[in-house]
Amino acid sequence: MPILGPNQYGKAENRVVKITRDGATHHIKDLNVSVSLSGDMDEVHYSGSNANVLPTDTTKNTVYAFAKEHGIASAEQFGIHLARHFVTSQEPIRTARIRIEEYAWERIATAGEDAHSFVRQGQETRLTQITYDGSSWEVVSGLKDLTVMNSTNSEFWGYVKDKYTTLPEAYDRILATEVAGRWRFNWSDDEQATPDWETSYEQVKKHMLKAFAETYSLSLQQTLYQMGSRIIDHRAEIDEVRFSLPNKHHFLVDLEPFGLKNATEDGAVYFAADRPYGLIEATILRDGCEPRIPVDLTNL
Amino acid sequence: MPILGPNQYGKAENRVVKITRDGATHHIKDLNVSVSLSGDMDEVHYSGSNANVLPTDTTKNTVYAFAKEHGIASAEQFGIHLARHFVTSQEPIRTARIRIEEYAWERIATAGEDAHSFVRQGQETRLTQITYDGSSWEVVSGLKDLTVMNSTNSEFWGYVKDKYTTLPEAYDRILATEVAGRWRFNWSDDEQATPDWETSYEQVKKHMLKAFAETYSLSLQQTLYQMGSRIIDHRAEIDEVRFSLPNKHHFLVDLEPFGLKNATEDGAVYFAADRPYGLIEATILRDGCEPRIPVDLTNL
Amino acid sequence: MPILGPNQYGKAENRVVKITRDGATHHIKDLNVSVSLSGDMDEVHYSGSNANVLPTDTTKNTVYAFAKEHGIASAEQFGIHLARHFVTSQEPIRTARIRIEEYAWERIATAGEDAHSFVRQGQETRLTQITYDGSSWEVVSGLKDLTVMNSTNSEFWGYVKDKYTTLPEAYDRILATEVAGRWRFNWSDDEQATPDWETSYEQVKKHMLKAFAETYSLSLQQTLYQMGSRIIDHRAEIDEVRFSLPNKHHFLVDLEPFGLKNATEDGAVYFAADRPYGLIEATILRDGCEPRIPVDLTNL
Amino acid sequence: MPILGPNQYGKAENRVVKITRDGATHHIKDLNVSVSLSGDMDEVHYSGSNANVLPTDTTKNTVYAFAKEHGIASAEQFGIHLARHFVTSQEPIRTARIRIEEYAWERIATAGEDAHSFVRQGQETRLTQITYDGSSWEVVSGLKDLTVMNSTNSEFWGYVKDKYTTLPEAYDRILATEVAGRWRFNWSDDEQATPDWETSYEQVKKHMLKAFAETYSLSLQQTLYQMGSRIIDHRAEIDEVRFSLPNKHHFLVDLEPFGLKNATEDGAVYFAADRPYGLIEATILRDGCEPRIPVDLTNL
Repeated sequence: MPILGPNQYGKAENRVVKITRDGATHHIKDLNVSVSLSGDMDEVHYSGSNANVLPTDTTKNTVYAFAKEHGIASAEQFGIHLARHFVTSQEPIRTARIRIEEYAWERIATAGEDAHSFVRQGQETRLTQITYDGSSWEVVSGLKDLTVMNSTNSEFWGYVKDKYTTLPEAYDRILATEVAGRWRFNWSDDEQATPDWETSYEQVKKHMLKAFAETYSLSLQQTLYQMGSRIIDHRAEIDEVRFSLPNKHHFLVDLEPFGLKNATEDGAVYFAADRPYGLIEATILRDGCEPRIPVDLTNL
Repeated sequence: MPILGPNQYGKAENRVVKITRDGATHHIKDLNVSVSLSGDMDEVHYSGSNANVLPTDTTKNTVYAFAKEHGIASAEQFGIHLARHFVTSQEPIRTARIRIEEYAWERIATAGEDAHSFVRQGQETRLTQITYDGSSWEVVSGLKDLTVMNSTNSEFWGYVKDKYTTLPEAYDRILATEVAGRWRFNWSDDEQATPDWETSYEQVKKHMLKAFAETYSLSLQQTLYQMGSRIIDHRAEIDEVRFSLPNKHHFLVDLEPFGLKNATEDGAVYFAADRPYGLIEATILRDGCEPRIPVDLTNL
Repeated sequence: MPILGPNQYGKAENRVVKITRDGATHHIKDLNVSVSLSGDMDEVHYSGSNANVLPTDTTKNTVYAFAKEHGIASAEQFGIHLARHFVTSQEPIRTARIRIEEYAWERIATAGEDAHSFVRQGQETRLTQITYDGSSWEVVSGLKDLTVMNSTNSEFWGYVKDKYTTLPEAYDRILATEVAGRWRFNWSDDEQATPDWETSYEQVKKHMLKAFAETYSLSLQQTLYQMGSRIIDHRAEIDEVRFSLPNKHHFLVDLEPFGLKNATEDGAVYFAADRPYGLIEATILRDGCEPRIPVDLTNL
Repeated sequence: MPILGPNQYGKAENRVVKITRDGATHHIKDLNVSVSLSGDMDEVHYSGSNANVLPTDTTKNTVYAFAKEHGIASAEQFGIHLARHFVTSQEPIRTARIRIEEYAWERIATAGEDAHSFVRQGQETRLTQITYDGSSWEVVSGLKDLTVMNSTNSEFWGYVKDKYTTLPEAYDRILATEVAGRWRFNWSDDEQATPDWETSYEQVKKHMLKAFAETYSLSLQQTLYQMGSRIIDHRAEIDEVRFSLPNKHHFLVDLEPFGLKNATEDGAVYFAADRPYGLIEATILRDGCEPRIPVDLTNL
């Protein structure tokens, strides 16, 4: 008889918006929360008995109730509350994994004192994943859809050439990518002090952007390493960083047939291609640490 | 024999990125340009004769060549160059319609003097559509995907109740929408001075956001009217505004079964729904002007 | 004071699934229904008074209640019921427009007599739009996302060449497109017999596909005309057809650098491009009829 | 100094269409091919030296050249050719992973003998992933976006109830899901005979659908187990199956306020919800085999 391997279940993509009022000044947290539970779940697969199954509908209710009861200090803190609850309150549940997307809003400037109007920032989506097995924690945070470009200071040459190689070497090209990044915290134990999750996120994003901008790049791999390395060097709370960086190709358009010179040094016209794209993926580790972020990044 | 009605053709979604270098400071324009031509095109439909057809591939080449030759001062100005070219250079082409999406980038702060690093802003997408028939111009600009929210100062009551009405009245609700807007300029003639397209866009967006934030709303229709009306009142170059505003419902979650009070006045928890959504669409006109923006807004 | 132009409102994207049981054999209708109402709606825009406003929530309830009360014989018939109801039951509402997407399902073959298992077909999405102003009807049906390809019998040559033309002529190319089509019925009056909507749809799709496949094409415009023309010729209930056909380019890959001949006559390897794409749009009319389908097709 | 962890690079989403001509009868293969290479790649990350880097552009060229040279008997066979080439032809490359999406086309029925017209089937997308490290092979195939529904024979009751549980038990509900599945072949060695990849895919899909349709379901987990188990039992070439099954909720609409009874036994009206959704994920293994398919399924 075929046997059951790794499994999990829960309610995905619970969209929760929490407004906090501080007089006329309102604050907003806008999350998309996914719950995955695992444990003693053989019977529900083999016979359909739900005796050990907390309904996914209940996990949804818990998300909304906790947003009211505990508030949302940060996505990470909220996920920790939820994960702890599921693992400690139901015996058959051994592990909980909470994934959260967070959407940022900024204030709309208005004439009066009121501050309850917001416009969605729309840049990157912030991410976190909390995993708890009853004894230790793993927190991996990250972001996706952050598009960046250097319009110069990127080269690509000196590569292997085989019979299928036709690419000319480039000494001044556009380097653009849509950053998907994840970073793992070394916090794993309730005895340790938790990081300041909000500050950590802002600082990681800042270092990532600066490393992208300030690296004179001979390959996207080199830029990726600098981005990860700078985070490890500046943020003691993080042991591992992984990036998946599509090389969003911008091809110099051949305008010679029309009697026009299109050269990078004068400012140039590019075709921004969709597919195919180079895809560069790597993990950067604090020396002595093991890689645990999976090879393939997934959104939620 | 069935006969040919309205028709047009061209190359859609030409992705063009133009870098301009001012020493170490680079500037960027990032557009998605779609060309549609119409005119004396019966034969290509009836018999397949391409004798009057400028290939869509040629219209693509023209977009890239013009970006180099003329630069891109603004999406509107670039579209005007292109439309004029197609109508005046090919006898069978009587009308050209150029549609452009523009993606905004902001600079990444860096240590040195270099300024060639950018992060995509990611908020709204700016739009324009230029139509030229050889004698007069129509310019309709706009935006899409600008998500805004008021966390209070919105009510909804006093409506019609029929046998299918179950909705309770609301005296303090979230009002959120994803703005799709278009506005038509009254510039139509080469003899008139052209508006300052860049300033106009920034000001329209500013007025739209302020009107959204500062209106105490009894209905989304009222908010929409205020948004359009404020643009007409402040921007003399614009005669018509149309909005398509989905009512992005945020439902107060019922937490009573869990012994929790979830009331707007204390700050509350909401479920952000996807579908269905209310959809409010209307045109606001300068007094004496005719509506010309189509009832259905389309993206490109 | 700025004045109100064309406006409408309603609940969009009501997802309704209706199961009908005929013993152990079940039938399914799976629709996405959008309601738009217009009429005497000045005050809700100017002052926020909702005295003439039937809530969009009520229009949603009506969709679900009607699915139970009247069933869903076809998307068109269902839309007619809804539109008539809104216009005749509320004095301030003068016009109703109902848009419907329909998703097709086919049965999964099973061992027993039961027939309640379905797999979504996933090919095109069927569309209809019903407009009623209290006296006359307009029904425009259609489809989107139907991708078709001819791997030969397509040429493109004899076109205009200007200074920006570099495209070589083609005597054997792939012709592929993703059909978006709309067709307008000449039924407009309750006194006329209604068409058999289900049969009409199947026949229109069949003729469209056969015309695409059997036309030896000198231009995509010619193929488009044949597709529309064949519908007009075979379906007396239809007076107007409009297509928006992206030319989904398949470029012959240059394999000469690798010593390989890649010629269409031997079967060839193509790069399927995303953007840019040619876009061909046209209306085909029964002789003597006026075009009424808007130039820009919209999804819902 | 931070150190480099797991990494890979290559060209993603190479869209390749191969036409094969058998007289007037054409055949089509339509793939989206992604190449990922890894090996001795420290230097390109640390110093930017590309001395060991075969350009991603070259991997793209190789995909197109191989489609011509070797043809595409199946996605799996094509991936095996590519993976072997990269690992055996470049010393620094130790492992190649090829991911392929395949889009199915069916013929359009036409009058004549010609058979070169196709319509895209549009149902599921077929997937495969080939990994080769120079000595052993891993082939994981699968599909995504296959939406299925049982309109009865599904129950859900007898579950755990805690203080956040409000869900009523259900004795006759709709069960619908969008299948994402992967299955791992036990072929791993060039000495073994390869499976018939095309037959295998068709049979796996058939068994999966039948198991979904014929299982009287007490939980989606039970249905999932039956789907995987049936594949393991019928297909000796497969040792492991993993599914990610969103529970696409169809909620019975409450029509009581309108005096209507909406009961499943009479055929009923449902609201098809988008988010949140239950998400059920599990692996089913041939007894004695180890799980190797990652917990999170990724598209390409």
